[in-house]
Amino acid sequence: MELTSGLTRRQVLGIIGKTAGVAAMYQAMTALGYAGESTEAATRFALHGAPKDTSILILGAGIAGMTAAYELKKAGYSVKILEYREKAGGRCWTLRGGDTFTELGGATQKCEFDPGLYFNPGPWRLPYNHYGILHYAKTFGVALEPFIQVNYNAYVHSNKAFGGKPVRYREVQADYQGYMAELLAKSINQGALDQEMTLQEREMVIASLKSWGALDDNYHYGKTISAAWRRGFEVNAGGGLMPPEAASQPLARRELIESAFWKRIITGQLVEFQSSIFQPVGGMDMIAQAFARQLPGTIRYNAKVTNIHQDERGVSVQYTDTVNGQALTEQADYLVCTIPASILAQIPMNVGAPMQAAIHSLPYGASSKVGLQFKRRFWEQDDFIYGGISYTDLPIRSISYPSTDYGHPGKGVLLGGYTWEGPNSYEFTAMTPAQRVQKAVEYGAQIHPQYKTEFDNGVAVGWHRVPWTQGCYGQWGDDEHLREQHYKNLCDIDGRIVLAGEHCSHIPAWQEGAVLSAQDAISRLHAKIVAQQ
Amino acid sequence: MELTSGLTRRQVLGIIGKTAGVAAMYQAMTALGYAGESTEAATRFALHGAPKDTSILILGAGIAGMTAAYELKKAGYSVKILEYREKAGGRCWTLRGGDTFTELGGATQKCEFDPGLYFNPGPWRLPYNHYGILHYAKTFGVALEPFIQVNYNAYVHSNKAFGGKPVRYREVQADYQGYMAELLAKSINQGALDQEMTLQEREMVIASLKSWGALDDNYHYGKTISAAWRRGFEVNAGGGLMPPEAASQPLARRELIESAFWKRIITGQLVEFQSSIFQPVGGMDMIAQAFARQLPGTIRYNAKVTNIHQDERGVSVQYTDTVNGQALTEQADYLVCTIPASILAQIPMNVGAPMQAAIHSLPYGASSKVGLQFKRRFWEQDDFIYGGISYTDLPIRSISYPSTDYGHPGKGVLLGGYTWEGPNSYEFTAMTPAQRVQKAVEYGAQIHPQYKTEFDNGVAVGWHRVPWTQGCYGQWGDDEHLREQHYKNLCDIDGRIVLAGEHCSHIPAWQEGAVLSAQDAISRLHAKIVAQQ
Repeated sequence: MELTSGLTRRQVLGIIGKTAGVAAMYQAMTALGYAGESTEAATRFALHGAPKDTSILILGAGIAGMTAAYELKKAGYSVKILEYREKAGGRCWTLRGGDTFTELGGATQKCEFDPGLYFNPGPWRLPYNHYGILHYAKTFGVALEPFIQVNYNAYVHSNKAFGGKPVRYREVQADYQGYMAELLAKSINQGALDQEMTLQEREMVIASLKSWGALDDNYHYGKTISAAWRRGFEVNAGGGLMPPEAASQPLARRELIESAFWKRIITGQLVEFQSSIFQPVGGMDMIAQAFARQLPGTIRYNAKVTNIHQDERGVSVQYTDTVNGQALTEQADYLVCTIPASILAQIPMNVGAPMQAAIHSLPYGASSKVGLQFKRRFWEQDDFIYGGISYTDLPIRSISYPSTDYGHPGKGVLLGGYTWEGPNSYEFTAMTPAQRVQKAVEYGAQIHPQYKTEFDNGVAVGWHRVPWTQGCYGQWGDDEHLREQHYKNLCDIDGRIVLAGEHCSHIPAWQEGAVLSAQDAISRLHAKIVAQQ
Repeated sequence: MELTSGLTRRQVLGIIGKTAGVAAMYQAMTALGYAGESTEAATRFALHGAPKDTSILILGAGIAGMTAAYELKKAGYSVKILEYREKAGGRCWTLRGGDTFTELGGATQKCEFDPGLYFNPGPWRLPYNHYGILHYAKTFGVALEPFIQVNYNAYVHSNKAFGGKPVRYREVQADYQGYMAELLAKSINQGALDQEMTLQEREMVIASLKSWGALDDNYHYGKTISAAWRRGFEVNAGGGLMPPEAASQPLARRELIESAFWKRIITGQLVEFQSSIFQPVGGMDMIAQAFARQLPGTIRYNAKVTNIHQDERGVSVQYTDTVNGQALTEQADYLVCTIPASILAQIPMNVGAPMQAAIHSLPYGASSKVGLQFKRRFWEQDDFIYGGISYTDLPIRSISYPSTDYGHPGKGVLLGGYTWEGPNSYEFTAMTPAQRVQKAVEYGAQIHPQYKTEFDNGVAVGWHRVPWTQGCYGQWGDDEHLREQHYKNLCDIDGRIVLAGEHCSHIPAWQEGAVLSAQDAISRLHAKIVAQQ
């Protein structure tokens, strides 16, 4: 496999072995993904042996940029970051009371949340198998708490199903599984799969379906105590002379199938959303803040990059100090650029045509989020929903309840709308922030009537209006042609420049993509630098 | 429905309405479960209008006894609790470093856990629909954090399946569901269910199965990216020039069915274990401690009850101060007795034959738990298991990882064995504490080889050896005859005495049973007292 500048990985390792010894070679092997090619290796990542007095400039103090800076500094490089914003994190961003945000178009919002309450406009979850970002969170002592992805007591809602009345997630989960088990048991009992399985296996499958699908002795799914153990009871078991439990009536099979509510029970089964999954205590930007604390004096804020130039001697980046308007230049031997392609396409940079084409070809996904503060946590107090997500086919798509401060008697902030790709994202982004908030409250009130009296205030972010990204994430999508044509060209080192960020990964839109992209990019850059000594 | 002493609920309400006014009647309606007969009413529970100078003695400062005391005091009764132990909580119990525990047989254990680490020998989970216990936890400001019940990255293990190699929960979940979807799709496509569903519904079901079961375009479940999104990838998607994701090979269908591993994916779908489910931050006894703080001066500790007597004037309880051996007597107008039936059967008490028979007929379930401290949290660091439960058919039955302090670099305590009914419970209880710990380490090492080098110390509780319960919980079991014969007699008021506790509920072994039992018992007692004025 060709790695960089015509060198195979094996050749690179050979050079490292000769010049820097076996220990460094083993480190390089790990860093180059040779030791298993596993993303778990992100937890053991380390570069060693930077050539003396070698400087690397990094553009962007988001997760990718700070990962690169942290690891390159540890390896011995002289590192500096230029960051457009006034603080670190990029899309790893949390809005709290007192924060202001001015979007493209000029609308400024001031967040009015109460102290301690927050909203993550960008990433908000840390899957257990996102080894890289979790590794840094743990290494830097960022406190983690479970993110409730699946809440069996949350709602599934559509105005086109069940008379517009929300049903509980547990009802959809239990009833769909129960009906499918019933249908399969019936097929097997009718002999439909006699060719497929031995009698013994058929008997074992039938027995398993009865238990897994909560079927009765006739292999029917219905209003039974067994089914109610899964879908919820009509009457919960009481104490003393209160009544014992009573079974509940399942949703009608055909209506359930037609509702397509079964789609909602799949998400939590996907590896990126499976339990256990986490969030930093206090907001996602706790990770950004922790990273920044590791990089004292390394980040220059309020630096708007205007030109990137490389030649045989090094790289030179022109930027404007957005506070005083001063034009400045920063020079270094090499450059790691984590500026989103959506922005980078607008900045002159002398890289080759393949990388330029890649930068200009990558569309950015649309997304919007609305954070709503309510006077009380009615979803817990009235609906007994603690964390998790209610789904709807209304334009807000979902309502996500806070995975923290359970049972708190005061105010609460929930995610009142989260659009992801599709027309709803563009609709919400096209509105003014105040309209987005108003619409989220209107739609949400169809699921939680308490919205009408309990709403306090809100903030809304449409990602195509965010000045430092102009879009949410590199939307490689399912168009394999796009990735085939441009992905490698985007990631390959061009002279002294390498790109990194979620857009330079197979995990776009996730912080893990940013981390792994940065680790991979600097591994290759380091190998190239060492090889050229 | 007859409620107490021949009075129907409606009659009781009528009396209350006449004597105490409409507001009290409404409260009584709620308390009597009249306003919906829902366990949710536990969150609005309140009694009002205790007759002047009426005293109620409570035996046992566990969750039932303290619920009764808290609510009766609020209603205006004069309340006192006698408690056998030196502190409140009963089975709501947490062991921490420095704690000692002497079991029946005389073995004393001193817990050697590091500061901040703990183990709950008794209840350890708070389901979202256990409204009563959650209500008190929230009311008293007990901090709650999610308990991870289902962890897709935890293990399922048997020495009789898959060569004894643990598989991941996600593999069992995805593969079983995928194979069942494949079998059903095949049946439908072969026409097996043409009589059962219209063509349109069959098409909708097939489409849903493809998505839900991760089937390919031929409706097969196999080594595909789609299936790997659920069961985990062979290679995780990387960043930069790291490889993209690669599909993994499903477990063989027949071996999976034979393994019965599919049984493990059902528990988390039952209402008592569904997400979201909680634990108090710092240990279950945080609830007991919070309750006790609400009852200053109310609880007399180290009081071993030796005789319970009632007559037309009141109740008289003889007890021994276990510190100084002094014999003492406490008198009151009424008695709420929350002593477990297993203990109460050994204490003389002049109640009628039906209640006596009930007390003597209820067996107590066996259970044992082993808490193990390790030098590091290898399950997180090596196996990427954060909280949740691994299942095995070894006698330890399961290993439960701590649902707190995720990513902490120091030591950790996990639940190294939890037997529940069945022979394993008796086996473990029959061993010495040191043997239980040793066995748990030996068995656990078959799933986590790190046990061998990382084990630090442990404590073990076999519930039939716990002096104040001599068993784990009232084992009504599935023997409907036992409950039919004795349950009402156990719960009915006998003169001036009413029993409460998890054993007097339809939710045995859960703290919610204790709370609802107490609320129901004191509602009836209060109604009777008020009616007799």
